[in-house]
Amino acid sequence: MRAVDRVIERLRDRFGRRLSTAAAVREQHGRDESWHPPAPPDAVVFARSTEEVAAVVAACAEHRVPLIPFGAGTSLEGHVAALHGGICLDLAGLDRILAVHAEDLDAVVEAGVTRRRLNEHLRDTGLFFPVDPGADATLGGMAATAASGTNAVRYGTMRENVLALTVVLPDGSVVRTGTRARKSAAGYDLTRLMVGSEGTLGVITELTLRLHGIPEAVSAAVCPYPSVRAAVDTVILTIQSGIPVARIELMDETSMEAVNRYARLDHAVAPTLFFEFHGSPVEVEEQARRVGEIAAELGAGAFRWATRSEERNRLWRARHDAYYALKALRPGGTGWATDVCVPISRLAECIEETRRDLEGLPMPVGLLGHVGDGNFHLAFIVDPDDPAELAQVKAVNERLVARALAMEGTCTGEHGIGHGKLEALRAEHGDLLPAMAAIKRALDPHGIMNPGKVVPA
Amino acid sequence: MRAVDRVIERLRDRFGRRLSTAAAVREQHGRDESWHPPAPPDAVVFARSTEEVAAVVAACAEHRVPLIPFGAGTSLEGHVAALHGGICLDLAGLDRILAVHAEDLDAVVEAGVTRRRLNEHLRDTGLFFPVDPGADATLGGMAATAASGTNAVRYGTMRENVLALTVVLPDGSVVRTGTRARKSAAGYDLTRLMVGSEGTLGVITELTLRLHGIPEAVSAAVCPYPSVRAAVDTVILTIQSGIPVARIELMDETSMEAVNRYARLDHAVAPTLFFEFHGSPVEVEEQARRVGEIAAELGAGAFRWATRSEERNRLWRARHDAYYALKALRPGGTGWATDVCVPISRLAECIEETRRDLEGLPMPVGLLGHVGDGNFHLAFIVDPDDPAELAQVKAVNERLVARALAMEGTCTGEHGIGHGKLEALRAEHGDLLPAMAAIKRALDPHGIMNPGKVVPA
Repeated sequence: MRAVDRVIERLRDRFGRRLSTAAAVREQHGRDESWHPPAPPDAVVFARSTEEVAAVVAACAEHRVPLIPFGAGTSLEGHVAALHGGICLDLAGLDRILAVHAEDLDAVVEAGVTRRRLNEHLRDTGLFFPVDPGADATLGGMAATAASGTNAVRYGTMRENVLALTVVLPDGSVVRTGTRARKSAAGYDLTRLMVGSEGTLGVITELTLRLHGIPEAVSAAVCPYPSVRAAVDTVILTIQSGIPVARIELMDETSMEAVNRYARLDHAVAPTLFFEFHGSPVEVEEQARRVGEIAAELGAGAFRWATRSEERNRLWRARHDAYYALKALRPGGTGWATDVCVPISRLAECIEETRRDLEGLPMPVGLLGHVGDGNFHLAFIVDPDDPAELAQVKAVNERLVARALAMEGTCTGEHGIGHGKLEALRAEHGDLLPAMAAIKRALDPHGIMNPGKVVPA
Repeated sequence: MRAVDRVIERLRDRFGRRLSTAAAVREQHGRDESWHPPAPPDAVVFARSTEEVAAVVAACAEHRVPLIPFGAGTSLEGHVAALHGGICLDLAGLDRILAVHAEDLDAVVEAGVTRRRLNEHLRDTGLFFPVDPGADATLGGMAATAASGTNAVRYGTMRENVLALTVVLPDGSVVRTGTRARKSAAGYDLTRLMVGSEGTLGVITELTLRLHGIPEAVSAAVCPYPSVRAAVDTVILTIQSGIPVARIELMDETSMEAVNRYARLDHAVAPTLFFEFHGSPVEVEEQARRVGEIAAELGAGAFRWATRSEERNRLWRARHDAYYALKALRPGGTGWATDVCVPISRLAECIEETRRDLEGLPMPVGLLGHVGDGNFHLAFIVDPDDPAELAQVKAVNERLVARALAMEGTCTGEHGIGHGKLEALRAEHGDLLPAMAAIKRALDPHGIMNPGKVVPA
């Protein structure tokens, strides 16, 4: 009997119908939203509490069986692929919002709560959780992958917005990495070590999150530009001027055309910036005025403004739909998203060189970016069954990563490593890999936690 | 021949007069600014480059000799005490500002550069580095101890303001933990693991730091209150209203009286809040108006305003001098500073219970706080040679830490563990200590890096 079958047998006693070995369930849990080929686990366990997670981890530890935590499956580098089989631990059932401390601007939630659900729950408190990676990911998954997104330029990423975690370590012990204090210097920062560790050092089961006040006034705008360079220069001057813009996003012509078609919108087909300003009415007006001046100097077109909530949602829908709109350009196609992030002074150069490198490629490709942070994505719409196409995109991505590293940037601003960026991680942090591997061995000596990701054995 | 003597012999060849075994030099390097008894190292090496640091670490690693990194010696929990002898590595000679990238809002500095020197260097760029722990510490030391201070409520602590570090690991290898990108999801976050590791996991030799624009307008104010409770309630409402105050600091009556005497000032002897507002002129006016309304409702006295730079400096001098002013109340006395941090909703209660616990103590004690973060200090002025006094303060501090933990806070907001808070760390994070110790062993298997601190062998 295989070790994994022994674990399945043992867990079936406890979990009954919440353990599945059905092919459809396993396949769904072996894939994320990327082009990476799926790798199904041997079984999926649907846990409902930290205690249940600890029991599953302990069983896997005893039998040296791989364990892969699973949130919403919206990662983009094959994070949940069961490369060595084993047990997938579906955490969506850890779905309780345990506490909202409005007076302290924090909330305690279980790992399976999604960001949208938390924000719906918070609506009447005047608070919100700002990290927004686009997908309605689980908050545990967002912490595990160090997610960020459109609001990060103002509110930070998961690193800055997680105060503490409850984690089941690879030996089955349950620890809490912090308190509800806003800051602490009490020993090694295991909160930040767990954020971005992609399930390779433990299973996050609870999070204490920073909340922020819903601003008194919010104003959003869309503005077309004569060139990507002019749009990016607006971003650079805005950030350098210290204007506390809440969101500043770039979409290129292909992306704008795709969303126009997908959502029946009528935006100009041009490099376009999406802005959002948060503050008191006076502050928002001031920020908008200052950005408007910068944009005008750089030859921007007319701002299309939205202040009421519905108008803003309609306006931002274009940005949020972009990935799906691009996919719709090629029915049956799959997205391959790149993710470099560079110092903002190099951003225009990096984007221009990259766009030149795309000339002649046969597939649709759109550019989208959290440009206030220097982070941008290309979304290639590929045929995952065409090796020649995949090889073309792989080569472009390798050149893109090399370009970003040469500009003192990173291979991944927010998507993480999974198993899709192992080579890129080696290129960026070859000197650090021995220390990362030593930490991995120290906390997970049997290598059971999401093996093959970040630091393969 | 002792192992440490072999290392000294070997290093003397390379460092010549930059290695000292003189008693005065050793004693000065075995003490910080706290009441903890000094513990001199066997020798002090004055390094000038990462390469020299790597050579010293390699020599200590080969002979299993303790190594203690030393910045400005301004820590408060015995961080630099050579508890097991060994080599103290003085990093003040790593004093080059390597690059200022004004357009990217970052700077690259060597570890021995102090925060004041960096800010003087930046003056003409319109940028500044905000983290301000009071003392003119080295930036390497500030990263090693996760320093924060008065500006943290708006600009964050060292955790949020370090983009990347160059670190000499305990085996003598040199690594770089990040890039100049504003965010990254590339593997384990070793930057944040090193921040706050207090020299127990490696020696920080270079830092890439986030800079911020000097605000167009700055306005500061001092305001007396009828009670500590009313002052703290102002803080709570200010933070909960999302007003982006840059500084909000509390001093109690004893501290105000001490600074009046020390610096010949004429502030009201009352619980007092110090405010600072940053932004455009319009924003600053708006923030000040909103805080003024809150304060008036809570019965605050008159605001004393300062907008010009010199006036502001004079006003803030009272806050910055407080620790020395309190020490001056008792010539020959030494400061013992506590450092709890609690959720802001518990802050008034925590402070009030703590003040009751001080009644009847024989020594001067002032209260100071970075109250916007829920962090406050008591400064006891003790006779370090009087065991009975030390025992009294120790008991008060133990009750204070227990009180903070019961309120979901931390034993240390910013001073760190050193060897003075080992018991408190155990009380707060007993469940986490095995994981911290495993990481320590993984990176420093021979236990040479600042032994006896944070996670003793």
